Amino acid sequence: MDLGLGFDEKDYLSCCGSTQFAKEMASASPFPSYNHAVSVARHIWFNTVDVNGWLQAFSAHPSIGQTRAPSHASQTSAQWSKGEQSTALATATGSSLQELAEWNAGYMQKFGFVFLICASGRSTESILAELKKRYTNRPIVEFEIAAQEQMKITELRLSKLFTSKENTLSTTDM
Amino acid sequence: MDLGLGFDEKDYLSCCGSTQFAKEMASASPFPSYNHAVSVARHIWFNTVDVNGWLQAFSAHPSIGQTRAPSHASQTSAQWSKGEQSTALATATGSSLQELAEWNAGYMQKFGFVFLICASGRSTESILAELKKRYTNRPIVEFEIAAQEQMKITELRLSKLFTSKENTLSTTDM
Repeated sequence: MDLGLGFDEKDYLSCCGSTQFAKEMASASPFPSYNHAVSVARHIWFNTVDVNGWLQAFSAHPSIGQTRAPSHASQTSAQWSKGEQSTALATATGSSLQELAEWNAGYMQKFGFVFLICASGRSTESILAELKKRYTNRPIVEFEIAAQEQMKITELRLSKLFTSKENTLSTTDM
Repeated sequence: MDLGLGFDEKDYLSCCGSTQFAKEMASASPFPSYNHAVSVARHIWFNTVDVNGWLQAFSAHPSIGQTRAPSHASQTSAQWSKGEQSTALATATGSSLQELAEWNAGYMQKFGFVFLICASGRSTESILAELKKRYTNRPIVEFEIAAQEQMKITELRLSKLFTSKENTLSTTDM
């Protein structure tokens, strides 16, 4: 029986929508622990995935405030996006969602990719304030910030993946 | 008679292959001087052109050591590339060109865009040494260096454009 924590390319693609990232994570699998997997994931994302791969990963996210994921995003990724935005959606009013939609469109127009933020636990107000602040950045600066936010999201999602497997393993062990 | 130094979108596209850059330069034309044009060009390139625009501009360059430009590059851009690489081509031997071609291919494989360097006056040896050094960079670091090299190339090409117009103007004035 395989006690290592390993998943296939499709699972890793749900954590981060870069095919290069998913392939390299699957090749490095299985991992002795979640922490080990995160450390490998950080290395792959920041040192080997190229800028086209970053853009590919960004394009797998829905706009903040929208629950509809891009058609090429996986079902797991779409469900996770919805969960990550649950605080934002619960604190949203009609007018704040409208304002968020307008700023998101402006952001996409300026930077050429979706506004990315690790939304877990954040209110709509706090997300909007961050969007307005980041909107003033130069494109290359914002590109790097978005990549750091993507890594935070990836870590949260890897944690969900690993928790589910650990649960399965301990249930099987009993 | 128009004494200002202005050119159309096509001219600016030969200096830098980002359509956004060319459009914004054409809108800001004519310029009172070459220095003024360079200052506007730097602002547009580093502050308003997004990362997709940077990739578009990079893709208009031939690989260093190759005189064949990408099919979508303009004729002027292709001619200028050839001129900028004249020192490199004059100092090249069969084996150094072969080594350059191999490193270029490896660079493209790692970073997803062509190795960009302001080649004017540089020998093949010096270009190859720089390529090997830059190859070790993280993708995002290399992306920003490439953008700085693109700006140097753009400045040289704007200077050619403006010199040709100034010559025409003074000839007409005589």
